[in-house]
Amino acid sequence: MSETSVRAADEAAVTSSPDSFLGPFNTKLLAAREASRSLATATAQVKNDALEAIARAVLSGAERVIAANELDLEAGRQAGLSEGLQDRLRLDLARLEGLADAVRDVAALVDPVGQVVRGSTLPNGLGLTQVRVPFGVVGAIYEARPNVTIDIAALALKSGNAVVLRGGSAAQNSNGVLVELIQQAIASVGLPSELVQTIDEFGREGATQLMRSRGLIDVLIPRGSANLIQTVVRESQVPVIETGDGIVHVFLDESADADLAAAIVHNAKTQRPSVCNALETLLVHSAAAERLLPGVLGGLRASGVTIHGDERTAAVFPDVVPASEDDWATEYMSLDLAVRVVDGLDEAMEHIRRYSTHHTESIITQSLANSERFLAEVDSAVVMVNASTRFTDGGEFGFGAEVGISTQKLHARGPMGLPELTSTKWIVRGTGQVRS
Amino acid sequence: MSETSVRAADEAAVTSSPDSFLGPFNTKLLAAREASRSLATATAQVKNDALEAIARAVLSGAERVIAANELDLEAGRQAGLSEGLQDRLRLDLARLEGLADAVRDVAALVDPVGQVVRGSTLPNGLGLTQVRVPFGVVGAIYEARPNVTIDIAALALKSGNAVVLRGGSAAQNSNGVLVELIQQAIASVGLPSELVQTIDEFGREGATQLMRSRGLIDVLIPRGSANLIQTVVRESQVPVIETGDGIVHVFLDESADADLAAAIVHNAKTQRPSVCNALETLLVHSAAAERLLPGVLGGLRASGVTIHGDERTAAVFPDVVPASEDDWATEYMSLDLAVRVVDGLDEAMEHIRRYSTHHTESIITQSLANSERFLAEVDSAVVMVNASTRFTDGGEFGFGAEVGISTQKLHARGPMGLPELTSTKWIVRGTGQVRS
Repeated sequence: MSETSVRAADEAAVTSSPDSFLGPFNTKLLAAREASRSLATATAQVKNDALEAIARAVLSGAERVIAANELDLEAGRQAGLSEGLQDRLRLDLARLEGLADAVRDVAALVDPVGQVVRGSTLPNGLGLTQVRVPFGVVGAIYEARPNVTIDIAALALKSGNAVVLRGGSAAQNSNGVLVELIQQAIASVGLPSELVQTIDEFGREGATQLMRSRGLIDVLIPRGSANLIQTVVRESQVPVIETGDGIVHVFLDESADADLAAAIVHNAKTQRPSVCNALETLLVHSAAAERLLPGVLGGLRASGVTIHGDERTAAVFPDVVPASEDDWATEYMSLDLAVRVVDGLDEAMEHIRRYSTHHTESIITQSLANSERFLAEVDSAVVMVNASTRFTDGGEFGFGAEVGISTQKLHARGPMGLPELTSTKWIVRGTGQVRS
Repeated sequence: MSETSVRAADEAAVTSSPDSFLGPFNTKLLAAREASRSLATATAQVKNDALEAIARAVLSGAERVIAANELDLEAGRQAGLSEGLQDRLRLDLARLEGLADAVRDVAALVDPVGQVVRGSTLPNGLGLTQVRVPFGVVGAIYEARPNVTIDIAALALKSGNAVVLRGGSAAQNSNGVLVELIQQAIASVGLPSELVQTIDEFGREGATQLMRSRGLIDVLIPRGSANLIQTVVRESQVPVIETGDGIVHVFLDESADADLAAAIVHNAKTQRPSVCNALETLLVHSAAAERLLPGVLGGLRASGVTIHGDERTAAVFPDVVPASEDDWATEYMSLDLAVRVVDGLDEAMEHIRRYSTHHTESIITQSLANSERFLAEVDSAVVMVNASTRFTDGGEFGFGAEVGISTQKLHARGPMGLPELTSTKWIVRGTGQVRS
């Protein structure tokens, strides 16, 4: 971004003052930017105090949160929200306790701000240091999962950023109370409450305007369905970190161990089918299909998985739903699995190249050569050998809480932790050097 | 990017086949992507051989390049191209030798691909490694500077990327010959010539389409005027690395040493006024204006610099052009300098916050406290103390050749070297681990 933030903001504020929408909207964003400056140089101790206050506020305000959440849930039930979405929307005491713990986990993480990335002394004596600094203001657009409100706010604050939140309208009551609690907590430690703000009251137009707020928002993080993310990616003029849908593949190579294959596939598909790192398409080496598929697919069937298989799959494991081209390109996020028999590693990688969203792919093999080729040649955020794709996760990777899993190649790729919520700047210390 | 590259490409190719423009255009981009795969796993040796071949080709083909360049120059002269732009367009033997040397310098750099960024063994035994990988296909949109053609091609190849070039139409003849030479050189070492391609033949529409080629182009780098860059930033659906215009500031603090201030300001303004790291606005502490300005501005005037000063500047250094609001927001790129007297560090930083493009700012001071505040609180890609802003440069920073200077906060900030032309991926090595 040509960081002409203040100029852009001033222009926006001036040109929008007659507008009853844009004026109040930009006032919020400008307040966030102003507040972000006080956070950029805040100590880790102050930020941790704020996080501890938030954790306490989420618990002490639990009754209010749950009451607001019940309103959202009731509206959702009446609007015919699916069981799965209702579950994502639901906040109960146990979940709030989990969220408070997660906030304290974030407080316990190393502060990325001020970390020296690299440095050197140039031949002319100039001292060069690249240090991590906050982005400034992070925008988040997400769906009806109020836990994201707490997650993103905690991660943003710890990494020194203000955050402007646009949650799903189905969670508006829950988010409203949560943001209020967060703001009170922040103010209680002497930081400006404008560091965390919601623009839910501006509705859809607010989301659209957020995507146009280049210069006011430094980076935008969409979280949710592929549809939401692609809309933001397409329409945003603010730089986006794309967190991704996952058409995730496992390839059972000729030499795959049968028990290991069955355990990994079962775990990758069934342990939590609604998330992006769950397995969607299983590819099997034709020379091993007869040996592996009955056991692997039998185990899945016993756990209620519907198999969408190609003809060669049906030949060794009858009674599958016939798979079509569409199945290869579908992220089911349910107990469904596409299965295709391929004639080896090259065909498996060709299938992945064609249909993968390049999130996570895993090869199950005992061949060193094939594992190395797969790891080198498959162009995905995470490539694995002999492991469940469910491990693609910031928590599992040891990052503490997770901002999301980036499927873009710019800035961050794969699970993102705190450092991915920062930028850097170069500090140059001289004693009068000029360039010749 | 949801790396649905092949699908997007297929769709584009299919839907565009009746179109005489989009068909051939996408065919080129698909060829670049296909070629990029052969480069992703190429050894550093093969890439260096290609670069050496390019260096030789630029020299052995010098006569052809210079003849083509003369056509461009003649057309430019007839079209009234300014002296400065003609100079940027010009290629002579000395400059070609310099370019060949620069290509060899790139070959000598450490290959970023395959570098391990970080790694660990998780408690469950999973081995985790984050390694650098190429983006895939880089797009470059730039103006009539044919040296950029060679620079970007060399940097892209060394970092494992294919590159699609859109140069300024005023350099089309020069670029055509250069790309032809590069392609022959690449092919001579057994790599696909489609790794480097120009889309100049598609004219403006080609540039527009390049910005829409999400899924085919992984990252787009605009290089040139602020106008060009802002257009790309605004219109591109492909992730952009914004290389920046610089409204660069120097602040002379109350305690600044007079000789050091004069030397640094003179160097920052006059050593090469047409580039983005040249000084544009000088801020002076009011308590030091009388002591410093006559010497500092006198030296500049002697070198032909026009001073655009505010009233307080004129009070101690008469006969300046009166500065207006516009001057604070102008990147002159010429022997002009805006000068403003401020009442201290806070007012200087407030001015910078308001008008800077956040490229480079330098404080000249003997105060430790003020230097530390300036370095911590000024939110620019490069912040300096007692050094000329002209040092914001990949070459000066020791990166070898330079891709540009990023003024965005995502992915890269400040001078970019080879690692900034790569992404990363995570490699996970397991022995059957499943998630519980």
